[in-house]
Amino acid sequence: MTVSSTGTRGETVPTVPSASANPAVDAVDVTALLERGRALSTPELRAAVDRLAAPMDTVAAYHFGWIDAQGRPADGDGGKAVRPALALLSAEAAGAAAEVGVPGAVAVELVHNFSLLHDDLMDGDEQRRHRDTVWKVHGPAQAILVGDALFALANEVLLELGTVEAGRATRRLTTATRKLIDGQAQDISYEHRERVTVEECLEMEGNKTGALLACAVSIGAVLGGADDRTADTLEAYGYHLGLAFQAVDDLLGIWGDPDATGKQTWSDLRQRKKSLPVVAALAAGGPASTRLGELLAADAKSNDFDSFSEAEFATRAALIEEAGGREWTSQEARRQHTIAIEALGAVDMPEKVRAQLTALADFVVVRKR
Amino acid sequence: MTVSSTGTRGETVPTVPSASANPAVDAVDVTALLERGRALSTPELRAAVDRLAAPMDTVAAYHFGWIDAQGRPADGDGGKAVRPALALLSAEAAGAAAEVGVPGAVAVELVHNFSLLHDDLMDGDEQRRHRDTVWKVHGPAQAILVGDALFALANEVLLELGTVEAGRATRRLTTATRKLIDGQAQDISYEHRERVTVEECLEMEGNKTGALLACAVSIGAVLGGADDRTADTLEAYGYHLGLAFQAVDDLLGIWGDPDATGKQTWSDLRQRKKSLPVVAALAAGGPASTRLGELLAADAKSNDFDSFSEAEFATRAALIEEAGGREWTSQEARRQHTIAIEALGAVDMPEKVRAQLTALADFVVVRKR
Repeated sequence: MTVSSTGTRGETVPTVPSASANPAVDAVDVTALLERGRALSTPELRAAVDRLAAPMDTVAAYHFGWIDAQGRPADGDGGKAVRPALALLSAEAAGAAAEVGVPGAVAVELVHNFSLLHDDLMDGDEQRRHRDTVWKVHGPAQAILVGDALFALANEVLLELGTVEAGRATRRLTTATRKLIDGQAQDISYEHRERVTVEECLEMEGNKTGALLACAVSIGAVLGGADDRTADTLEAYGYHLGLAFQAVDDLLGIWGDPDATGKQTWSDLRQRKKSLPVVAALAAGGPASTRLGELLAADAKSNDFDSFSEAEFATRAALIEEAGGREWTSQEARRQHTIAIEALGAVDMPEKVRAQLTALADFVVVRKR
Repeated sequence: MTVSSTGTRGETVPTVPSASANPAVDAVDVTALLERGRALSTPELRAAVDRLAAPMDTVAAYHFGWIDAQGRPADGDGGKAVRPALALLSAEAAGAAAEVGVPGAVAVELVHNFSLLHDDLMDGDEQRRHRDTVWKVHGPAQAILVGDALFALANEVLLELGTVEAGRATRRLTTATRKLIDGQAQDISYEHRERVTVEECLEMEGNKTGALLACAVSIGAVLGGADDRTADTLEAYGYHLGLAFQAVDDLLGIWGDPDATGKQTWSDLRQRKKSLPVVAALAAGGPASTRLGELLAADAKSNDFDSFSEAEFATRAALIEEAGGREWTSQEARRQHTIAIEALGAVDMPEKVRAQLTALADFVVVRKR
């Protein structure tokens, strides 16, 4: 178990213990799993988006990277597609065919992208997946409207199955969506506060990232007929996996390689995000922590913040690291990863699926973007 | 059957034939029906909104008129509450108790208010129900976020019932919501077009207003166990009632009394809305129609539009009336009202409920705001 915290951007991600502890897990081809999730869900996702009235179908296609801003076909970066892969494994965990999880995979992707469209607008983010965000290209009204449409479409895709299981799956998706919205509300309100506790930050990240990943891991099983206890336990795996994922994201948001993340250098610092490394550093105490607190308090009142140089952000990043915020966040990623893997142990499922879910958890924690 | 088109604002609404044709309908106390809808649904609506994380609960309470901008309790104008009244009658139409329709009433109100929050922001509307809109008071991010939260809450309120009927009700609500969003997309795109046909306008209004009113009239029945055919027929009543309602709204949007509507004089003309009176006048042909077309085309390119005087809007309103747009829209309101009443005849329901639904339809068409 090592942490490569050399201070170089792009090499900040923690390695995880289980990656080499189990030959069955090592044998899993994660790339193939992700590719299967994409291959089975994307045609259904595109068919769902095609139902939208013009111009929402075009705006959504741009958002998903299927066309460029001029409407020409594009082979965009649709993201890692971890959620669809999880939704299919979720069905298999319940003993159903992977295909049973497809409407769940589509619904979760629709909700995820609904939240991206709205969050990018609320946060004023101009770039996503190396491209201009929808509100930059098509205007705020389309970002709001298409987000709304994707949210409605998510429920439609599930409910038109017309089964009792679909109703249960929609209820879980609705709960996750409410948490997602709660998390965004917390994120926005924390921006205006001088101090945020580590617990508040974890709660916010659990809502923003954990809840929907949890739903991805239960929704296929629910569609496949799993009982509530099984679904809840699968959600525990997904929730903690989400927290591990977000901890890594928070490391990449400060020390990530812009070429890999598609974001600016020191992205989260530029946005004054109170992410885990920052709140952990501020909570740590000691000279670096105190100095960081003074700097960030001054930054909050500064009129020159937007013209800060690379060096000024580098100073803040160094203080976060010196105060232990980077190391703490790496350990937190590993800790959440461990809890996630333990939750898997409580569910009776085919060993092959267990190994695949374990390998996906490892992948999420060691990813570089 | 008379139309009071005297040219005076506030007296433009058509009277309807059935209002005096049936003693059982005349005997219905519409005010009491609306009050019952409000009394039964508001406590549940407030309980649902109270679930939202801070500050969304406060923002939503402001939107509903329960508190003022400073957070003090208010006795705001929550609207006419036609939808809750319809949802309760819908349950009774299926032979169930009115109370069975309450979660449906709450869910429909939540979706309706989700759309108001987002539409006001997209359209830049600064006033609603005689008060500043949420985005004006609490900012665009809160308007987006609280709208999203109300939409999610609507599904949650239904699905937590955990019944097969609740799943069917949620599916109908989802379909209606998608149409609502389609209608807003059409509304926005029509603003940028020089000409919109009467058919396009009716389709847009059917989506924006008809679909959710239709859902209000079926959702209680579905929760009460009605079959799909009954629900579909009830929706036909609600859909055409919605079109009648919107035609009256379009009349009030130009000739309504600002004191009653809470909107500016010539409100829809100021917003360059291609509402029914306008598109009907433009489609009519003849000198007034042609002159109106020329004026509106020039307005679309004018830099001075925002400083137009009352007289300039009055000129446009007079041309719309002269070209027959006002009379056509009055007739359209009556025509849609007649179709709605006919649809009621196809559903087997207690005669008392039929008289109440008929009286509500009459009320909607003769309302002054």
